[in-house]
Amino acid sequence: MEKTSTDAFPFTMNSSEKQETICIFGTGDFGRSLALKMLQCGYSIVFGSRNPQKSSLLPNGAEVLSYSEAARKSDIIIIAVHREHYGFLTELTEVLKGKTLVDISNNLKINQYPESNAEYLAQLVPGAHVVKAFNTISAWALQSGALDANRQVFVCGNDSKAKQRVMDIVRTLGLTPLDQGSLMAAKEIENYPLQLFPMWKFPFYLSAFLCVFFFFYCVIRDVIYPYVNSGKDSTFRMAISIPNRVFPIAALTLLALVYLPGVIAAILQLYRGTKYRRFPDWLDHWMLCRKQLGLVALGFASLHVLYTLVIPIRYYVRWTMKNRTITQATAKREDPFSTSTAWLSDSYVALGILGFFLFVLLGITSLPSVSNTVNWREFRFVQSKLGYLTLILCTAHTMVYGGKRFLSPSSLIWYLPSAYVIALIIPCIVLVIKFVLVLPCIDKTLTRIRQGWERNAKPTLNGERYLKQSSVHLDSEL
Amino acid sequence: MEKTSTDAFPFTMNSSEKQETICIFGTGDFGRSLALKMLQCGYSIVFGSRNPQKSSLLPNGAEVLSYSEAARKSDIIIIAVHREHYGFLTELTEVLKGKTLVDISNNLKINQYPESNAEYLAQLVPGAHVVKAFNTISAWALQSGALDANRQVFVCGNDSKAKQRVMDIVRTLGLTPLDQGSLMAAKEIENYPLQLFPMWKFPFYLSAFLCVFFFFYCVIRDVIYPYVNSGKDSTFRMAISIPNRVFPIAALTLLALVYLPGVIAAILQLYRGTKYRRFPDWLDHWMLCRKQLGLVALGFASLHVLYTLVIPIRYYVRWTMKNRTITQATAKREDPFSTSTAWLSDSYVALGILGFFLFVLLGITSLPSVSNTVNWREFRFVQSKLGYLTLILCTAHTMVYGGKRFLSPSSLIWYLPSAYVIALIIPCIVLVIKFVLVLPCIDKTLTRIRQGWERNAKPTLNGERYLKQSSVHLDSEL
Amino acid sequence: MEKTSTDAFPFTMNSSEKQETICIFGTGDFGRSLALKMLQCGYSIVFGSRNPQKSSLLPNGAEVLSYSEAARKSDIIIIAVHREHYGFLTELTEVLKGKTLVDISNNLKINQYPESNAEYLAQLVPGAHVVKAFNTISAWALQSGALDANRQVFVCGNDSKAKQRVMDIVRTLGLTPLDQGSLMAAKEIENYPLQLFPMWKFPFYLSAFLCVFFFFYCVIRDVIYPYVNSGKDSTFRMAISIPNRVFPIAALTLLALVYLPGVIAAILQLYRGTKYRRFPDWLDHWMLCRKQLGLVALGFASLHVLYTLVIPIRYYVRWTMKNRTITQATAKREDPFSTSTAWLSDSYVALGILGFFLFVLLGITSLPSVSNTVNWREFRFVQSKLGYLTLILCTAHTMVYGGKRFLSPSSLIWYLPSAYVIALIIPCIVLVIKFVLVLPCIDKTLTRIRQGWERNAKPTLNGERYLKQSSVHLDSEL
Repeated sequence: MEKTSTDAFPFTMNSSEKQETICIFGTGDFGRSLALKMLQCGYSIVFGSRNPQKSSLLPNGAEVLSYSEAARKSDIIIIAVHREHYGFLTELTEVLKGKTLVDISNNLKINQYPESNAEYLAQLVPGAHVVKAFNTISAWALQSGALDANRQVFVCGNDSKAKQRVMDIVRTLGLTPLDQGSLMAAKEIENYPLQLFPMWKFPFYLSAFLCVFFFFYCVIRDVIYPYVNSGKDSTFRMAISIPNRVFPIAALTLLALVYLPGVIAAILQLYRGTKYRRFPDWLDHWMLCRKQLGLVALGFASLHVLYTLVIPIRYYVRWTMKNRTITQATAKREDPFSTSTAWLSDSYVALGILGFFLFVLLGITSLPSVSNTVNWREFRFVQSKLGYLTLILCTAHTMVYGGKRFLSPSSLIWYLPSAYVIALIIPCIVLVIKFVLVLPCIDKTLTRIRQGWERNAKPTLNGERYLKQSSVHLDSEL
Repeated sequence: MEKTSTDAFPFTMNSSEKQETICIFGTGDFGRSLALKMLQCGYSIVFGSRNPQKSSLLPNGAEVLSYSEAARKSDIIIIAVHREHYGFLTELTEVLKGKTLVDISNNLKINQYPESNAEYLAQLVPGAHVVKAFNTISAWALQSGALDANRQVFVCGNDSKAKQRVMDIVRTLGLTPLDQGSLMAAKEIENYPLQLFPMWKFPFYLSAFLCVFFFFYCVIRDVIYPYVNSGKDSTFRMAISIPNRVFPIAALTLLALVYLPGVIAAILQLYRGTKYRRFPDWLDHWMLCRKQLGLVALGFASLHVLYTLVIPIRYYVRWTMKNRTITQATAKREDPFSTSTAWLSDSYVALGILGFFLFVLLGITSLPSVSNTVNWREFRFVQSKLGYLTLILCTAHTMVYGGKRFLSPSSLIWYLPSAYVIALIIPCIVLVIKFVLVLPCIDKTLTRIRQGWERNAKPTLNGERYLKQSSVHLDSEL
Repeated sequence: MEKTSTDAFPFTMNSSEKQETICIFGTGDFGRSLALKMLQCGYSIVFGSRNPQKSSLLPNGAEVLSYSEAARKSDIIIIAVHREHYGFLTELTEVLKGKTLVDISNNLKINQYPESNAEYLAQLVPGAHVVKAFNTISAWALQSGALDANRQVFVCGNDSKAKQRVMDIVRTLGLTPLDQGSLMAAKEIENYPLQLFPMWKFPFYLSAFLCVFFFFYCVIRDVIYPYVNSGKDSTFRMAISIPNRVFPIAALTLLALVYLPGVIAAILQLYRGTKYRRFPDWLDHWMLCRKQLGLVALGFASLHVLYTLVIPIRYYVRWTMKNRTITQATAKREDPFSTSTAWLSDSYVALGILGFFLFVLLGITSLPSVSNTVNWREFRFVQSKLGYLTLILCTAHTMVYGGKRFLSPSSLIWYLPSAYVIALIIPCIVLVIKFVLVLPCIDKTLTRIRQGWERNAKPTLNGERYLKQSSVHLDSEL
C-alpha cells in the first residue's frame, strides 16, 4: 500500500540490485525521520503499525503493514515505540525469532527503570538479537543533515553479527557508529542523552563556592569595613572592583588545582613504589575533570582581563584621577617619577598578559579538533610544559601585584589579609612540590616506576620484565 | 607500457593478493592526482587516453592504454574529462555496459546546464551505472593529505551496489563518503563547490543594511546636526565614535533576530494546534540561518568591545579630559562624587562584559568540533537557556547605558531619538513574547503540541496516538 | 587458563556467532590496554607469553598461552614487544607463516635504526604479512575513550588484504584508520609520534630571530640613546613599551611572509611559462608552513592588542598625563583641538581594530573543524581575499601610525630609522607585486598557466590538450 506525500527527496530507484529492506515498528516522529533518511540512502522501508490503514504523514515510498507482516519482510526491525508499549512484542515472539531488533528508545529520567530498555526488550523477545542504537540522534539532526549536532551513534549488543549490520547501516546514513560492547552498556547509552555536563559538575560547584566565599571576604574588607570605620558608602564596588578581585583569585586557584592531582599522584606512586595500584576514587575523578577545571579557570581569567581593561573608562576611576590632578594642580605640586614603581607596574602587567596569552593557547589546543591534529608528545608538551609555565607566570603576576605591600602588616583589615595573599597558597604549594619532583634523583625513580618498574617486585618475575616495559608509548607522565 | 617518473611514493607491491584495478579516462591534473593517491593506497591504475603514446607526467606505476583497452581492464571507470568532451563515450557504449562510471566533473557556474553532468553522462551511456563523486575534493588536497581542506566526498547514484563500491574506494583513500541518494542529487552536489557561503547571504545583507542605515542615522545626529547648528566640524567621529554606536546596535538587533523566529514558530504552533503543518518558507529559511545570524552578531559585539576598550587612548578623549581638568583646576572647583552615577556606570559596564562573555561561550559551542562532543540536551541548554540569558544581559546593558537619559525628550535631535533606543525595540518584543510563552499554562500546551498532540485530531485516530508520541528524542523545542 | 581481574567492563557474550580471536604477543602496558579495548568491542583475546603461568594484571576474559600455542589460535598477531626483543620470533617462523603480524612499536629517537621496526620484523619473519599500526595511540587514550587525544591510526603494509583486516579492527575499536600505503611508509609512521611540531620549527625560529633583532634595535633607540645622551634611566621600557613595538613588527612581517611565497611562485610560473615544473625545495617548504607562519603572526598581533589596551592603566602613562595636565593648569594654558590629529589618531586605531578582527576571522577559519565545513572555493575566498585585505589594513594601520612623522629625518636616532619603518618594507613589496599580478593582462596569462596551458608546448601534443585542462577543480590559485 503506497503512501503519497508532499516530500520530494531523491531516493534510489531503477537499481539493478534488490535493495535491503528495513522494518520500522511505530510511525512516530523519530520513526518517520529515520525512515526518510534510510529511503534517501537507498534502503526499502516497511512500517509495522497497529492500524496500517490509518497511518498518515509517512514518507513517500514506504509501505505500511501490520506488525507481523512487516516483520516478515526484513531481518532488521527498528522498535520506534516507547518502552511502556513494548508489551505487544511478546505476541510476535515467533516472527521475531533470530531477527535483529534495534532499540532506539530513550527515557525521561536518568536510571528511570531498574534495567535498560534494551535489556528489557531482550527479555521480552528472547529469540531475537537486540542491538541498542540511534538513541543519541535527534529527528531534527537526521533531517537537517546532522552537520551541527552530534553525529556519533553509540551501538551495543550481545550478537556481534547483528551489531555489525546495524553499524553498517549507521555508516551508510552518514553517521559515526561507536561500538560500546555488550548489551550491559545499554544503560549507560540510555543515560547519555539525559546527562547535562556531568564532567563539569565538580568544577562548577567548586568555582561557585570559591566565588561566593571570596566575594563576601572582599565585601567585608572593602565595603563593610569602610562603612563601619568611616561611614563611607562604597557599595558600588560590588559591580566591578570586587568581581575583579574574585575572578583572578578563582582563576589562579582553579589553575593550581588542575596541576595538584598530578603531583599528588606522583607522590603516591613514589610512596607505593609501583604504578600498578589504582588511585583512590576521588583522585581518579579529580584527574578526569582537569580539563574542565582548566577551562573554567580560563573563563575567570578572561573575565578578569575584560574587567581590568575597562578600568580607565569607569566613572569612579576617572573622577578619582581628575580630582587628584586638580588637588595637585591647585597646590602647584608635581609627583616625582619613580623608576621602581614603573618597573613594578609594567612587569606586573606584562607577566599577566603573557600568562593570559599562554592560557588562551592552552584553551585553544584543548579544542577537540585541534587536539586531534597533534600527536601525543605534542599534546603533552603543550598541556604539561606550557601549562606549568602559565601557572608560574600567573603566580608571579599575582606576587608582583602585591609588590611592596606583600605580606606587610598594614594591609591587614580586621586581621584579614588581602584576598590575593590567600589565592597564592595553593599555587605556591603546587610549584614547590613540582620543583622537588623534577629534581634529577626523584625524577629518575618516578620515570622508572611509570615505565613499569616495581620497587617490591619479586625476582622470579624478571622473565616477564621486558614485556611489562614494552610499548611505553610515551604516556609515562600522568 | 610503464611510465617512468621522478615521483617516489611508497605504493603497495609484493602483495599476495591481486590488486583491484581502476581505470581513469583523461590524464589531466585531477586524474593524475587521483591516480597517484590510489596507487599509494594499493590500487592498480590504468589510464585511458586518445593518444596513449603522447601522455607524459603520469605517476609511476600507472599504465596508459587506448580508451577501449583501458575500459576492458576495470569495472570502475573514472571520467576525468570535461563535460564538453563526453561525446567520445557514446562510441564506447558496448565496452562500458554494466560498468560503473564515476563522474567527477565540475562546472564553472551554478546551474550551468539544464541537467547535471552525471545525469547527462547516464543518458549518453545508458547501459552503465553512473555514480557522482570526488567533485568536492581538490587535486591539492589529495596530494597534501587533505588535512586542512574538506575531506567529505558527496556520493550519489541510482545503483546501490555501484555506489557502495565507490564509497569503499573513497574510504580507502582516507576520505569520508557521504551518501546523498539517487542521481537526482547530482545537480546539488555539482553546485556545492561553486557556492560561496549560501547560508551567510541573508545574515550578511541584513547586517549590511543595518550598518548602513544606522551609520547614516548617527551621522545625521552627531555630524550634520552639530555642523548645521553650530558649524562644528566633528567628521572625525565617523572613524570610531559612530561605528561604536552602529556595531552594538547591529549586534543586539541580530541577536534578537536569532530568537524571533523561534517565538513566531511557537505562536504559529499554538494557533494551529499542531506541529504537523509546515512553516512558511521564509520562516523555515530564517530558522536555518539562525546560527549564522548569531555569529555575525558576535562579530559586531567583538568589534564593539574593541572599539570601547580603545576609548582611553584616543586623542579626542584624552584632549577632552585634560581640558576639562584644566578648566576645573583653574576654577579651583572639584566635582562631588555621585554614588548613583558610579553604580550606573559600573553596572552598565559589568552587564556588558557578562553578556559578551556568555556570547563568546555561545560562539565557542557552535564550533563544529565542540558541538559534536555535547549531547542534544547539553546543546539545547547552551543555545537556548544561555542564549536567552545573553539576550537579557545585553538588553539590560543597553537600557542601563541610557540610564537617566533614557526616553527623556531632551535627547531628541530633529525629533530623532537616540539610536540605542531604536535598537531596543526588537529585543524587548522578543523577551516579552518569550516571557508570555514560558508562563506555565501556555508552556504546557506548547509542550504537548511539540510531543505530537493535535488539538483537532479525530477521536478515531486514538489507536495510533502512542505511536505518534513515541521517540520524542528531546527535540521538542524548535 | 582464565585470568581473574577486578576490571568489570561489559564485553560481548552469549553471542550466537563465533567471535574473531586476536593474539597479542607481550603482556606489557600497551598490550593489556589494547586487549581490554578489543574485549570490550567483542573480540576474543589470547596472550602469547614466555612464562604464561607468571602473567598477572591481565584483563578479565583473556587467555594466556605460550607463544606458539597462542599464535596457532589466531590469524592476526599483535607484536606488543620492544624491537630489541624481536629475536624470539625467528623460532616461530613456521607457526607465523601466512599470518598477519601487527607491528605497534615505537622508538625512543627519530631514525633510531637504519630500517623501520616493521621492515625489520618483515625480514625476521619472511613468511608473514607485516602491517604497521596503532603506534600513534597511547594506552591512556585507549582506556579513556580517545575523546581528546588523537584517534587517527596510521596503517601501512605490503599485503592489501592483511592491511584491510587490520583497518577493520581499527574501525571497530572506534578509531580512524588512515591507509599510508606500503611498508616503506613505516619509517615515517614510526617517526610521527616522536615529532614535536615539525611544521612550526621554521616559523618559530624565524619569529624568535625577528623578536630578538627588533628588541635590541629598539633598546638601542629607546634605552641606550637616552642614557648616553641625557643619562636618563628608561630601562623600565623593556617590560611593555619595547615589546609593544616588537610584537606588531613581528606580526606584520610574518603576515607578509605568508603571502610572499605565493607571489614568488606566480612570478616563477610566469617566467617558466608552465606549472608542470617543481618549485625549488625552499619554496615548497615555505608554502607548506604558511598556515603556521600566519598563526604565529596572529599570536603576536594578539599580544600587541593586549599590550596596547593596557596603556592607560600603566603608572608611567598615568604619571605623564597627570603631570602634563598639572603643568598646563599651572600655566593656565589649554591646547587647541586639532581635527587632523583626531582624524589621524582615530583612523589609525580603527584600521588596527578592523585588521585585527579580520586576522582573528582568518585564524578561526583555519581551525580544522571549521575549515572542514567550508568548500574549496569558500576556503580560498577566506584565506586569499580576506587574507590580502587583512594585510592591506595592517599595513595601512602602520603607515597612519607614522602619520606626519613618517620618513621625517627628525625621527632618525644615530642614523637608525624608527622600527616600524623597517617593518613596512616586506608588506609593501608583497602588496606592490600582488597589485601587478592582478592586472588583467598578467592575471589572464597566469590563470591559463594554472589551468594547464604551457607556453612552449609542442603543437603535436594538442590532441591531449583538453585532457590536461580537465577537472580544474578550482585549485588554480596556489
